[in-house]
Amino acid sequence: MKIAIVFGGSSYEHEISIVSSIAMKDVLKEELIYIFCDQNREFFEIPNKIIKSKLFSSGEYKKCEQLTLKKGGFSKKSMFSQKDVAFDVVLNLTHGGDGEDGVLASLFEFYGIKFIGPRVEACSVSSHKFLTKGYATSLGVNTIDYSFYTKNDTIEIESFPVIIKPARLGSSIGVSIVKSVEELNYALDVAFEFDDAVLIEPFISGIKEYNLAGTKIGNEFKFSIIEEPQKVEFLDFDKKYLDFSRTSKAVEADLTQEIQEKIKESFKKLYNTLFEGSLIRCDFFVLDNEVYINEINSIPGSMANYLFEDFSTLLYALANDLPTKKRIVINYEYVNKIQASKGK
Amino acid sequence: MKIAIVFGGSSYEHEISIVSSIAMKDVLKEELIYIFCDQNREFFEIPNKIIKSKLFSSGEYKKCEQLTLKKGGFSKKSMFSQKDVAFDVVLNLTHGGDGEDGVLASLFEFYGIKFIGPRVEACSVSSHKFLTKGYATSLGVNTIDYSFYTKNDTIEIESFPVIIKPARLGSSIGVSIVKSVEELNYALDVAFEFDDAVLIEPFISGIKEYNLAGTKIGNEFKFSIIEEPQKVEFLDFDKKYLDFSRTSKAVEADLTQEIQEKIKESFKKLYNTLFEGSLIRCDFFVLDNEVYINEINSIPGSMANYLFEDFSTLLYALANDLPTKKRIVINYEYVNKIQASKGK
Repeated sequence: MKIAIVFGGSSYEHEISIVSSIAMKDVLKEELIYIFCDQNREFFEIPNKIIKSKLFSSGEYKKCEQLTLKKGGFSKKSMFSQKDVAFDVVLNLTHGGDGEDGVLASLFEFYGIKFIGPRVEACSVSSHKFLTKGYATSLGVNTIDYSFYTKNDTIEIESFPVIIKPARLGSSIGVSIVKSVEELNYALDVAFEFDDAVLIEPFISGIKEYNLAGTKIGNEFKFSIIEEPQKVEFLDFDKKYLDFSRTSKAVEADLTQEIQEKIKESFKKLYNTLFEGSLIRCDFFVLDNEVYINEINSIPGSMANYLFEDFSTLLYALANDLPTKKRIVINYEYVNKIQASKGK
Repeated sequence: MKIAIVFGGSSYEHEISIVSSIAMKDVLKEELIYIFCDQNREFFEIPNKIIKSKLFSSGEYKKCEQLTLKKGGFSKKSMFSQKDVAFDVVLNLTHGGDGEDGVLASLFEFYGIKFIGPRVEACSVSSHKFLTKGYATSLGVNTIDYSFYTKNDTIEIESFPVIIKPARLGSSIGVSIVKSVEELNYALDVAFEFDDAVLIEPFISGIKEYNLAGTKIGNEFKFSIIEEPQKVEFLDFDKKYLDFSRTSKAVEADLTQEIQEKIKESFKKLYNTLFEGSLIRCDFFVLDNEVYINEINSIPGSMANYLFEDFSTLLYALANDLPTKKRIVINYEYVNKIQASKGK
């Protein structure tokens, strides 16, 4: 089984996608193909042997072979012939824009390329925090209270501290904790710098956070351990980014059976069936024995490999169990009916 | 302003997309370019002069020039040169799959092609009925009660009649009204034939339906008249399909000012800001003076032109006011930081 990792993209998380992808070399057992999408959305095949983060920052990757999308995969650009890149399945490891917002999922769907990763609806629901809230609520999964504003709205906060988040970005980009009304405008400016919509939630100091990753093979859920991530006041950009290179095993959180079950039940509801084909990490809050979804990472940093006992085996099992779309046959019955009635 | 209509697609609504697109010839004032996406997802440029529905059902379209997607547009396939197709903006008129599910929106986004039509999140929210319900609810817009089931769920209905709908399809495909438990299994089989998830709603006989189309230019909403569509028990496939060729003006529904306002307020909430760039038609129910959203048509049949006084002027105004994505600049600051710390 040859997996092609597609990474990079036009995304605020472009760089951590590089780091995540390089980490896969240490955790996946079989040979990997690396397909880099640069910030101009040109594709390059990066040889396994030479991949390292500096290749991208220096621009040296441009010396690698350029690829074009085609039916069923990628081909190498050359003057007189087309040579296809040989792989069995793509692993979408493009964090944030392009990868987690549905763009690449749509491209793979359109060009008929098998891929591990969230499908387009799963992307929309997980990458837009307002949609995550609505989705979770309609599934009966708790979320922290919130209000939602767009750029021209009047914003009034009743009680501080609050946490302000751009509606669409991950990895704490543009997120601020606001402790008083004096800090509000600056924080809003920062958030609106990244998005035309923001969510404001009460900031609950000391709230416990727990992460659970998982996927579904056949009809069976495969869960990781539950981890309590280390955090400062909240995960800042640098700290969170360094997590993307994690490959050493995490420590299981000390939780009652009841809370563990509640976390897993919430995960199942959120995953089923929209996230089929992907391996996701859900970040939950626990408050007064109740479980709340904070966010769904549809392409988690380093694929959350550090949470699984045998990540490699699991990922190859998922690669062999991807959802397929039914082929639509168009027989022009309707158009023929119009023709017939016009002929009368 | 040269508009390129992209239509067809791998979709159960492929044929009505053809009909809708041909109708545009009669209602748009300036020259049109036609780009057909066939069921195998190959693109062809169809000359304005020869377009008619039979061209597609006969397969004759294959004699037209084949196109490939490229940065900023489409180019004509030829042995020794690339010739671009000249247009200013795409009008996405691919109903259902590919067009309304976010696939083409993602392609246009990825290749940097300006287009009129729903963006990817708007597609997810409007094409998946379960997500529409959750989205509407979190905006404070009423929806009819429903239950949501996937293929392996046990389904128990407390009271009949109900209406069963596949979660994802439009145009009444796979939809049944079920009057008793005896009819249930067959209706479920039909719905699950088209999707792995279904919604079941109480069927409210004689409920009034009203359609309102609109868009936003700058910060101002532009509404159509509100129409009460003619219907039999519910719109069946053929009847609904014939509506896609509509170009003659509709008759305004006789509604109180209060209900009209409620319908418009609901439309604004649903549109804002996710549907920017598109012209949509929302179908509402009215029951006991309350307004409920039934469905959001993110690419309505024949663009709902028949509901507007001056559709052509409005569409060209929208073409000049499309949302643009901020360009993300990647400076490799993070990767450079890693390099620097490794060098220490």
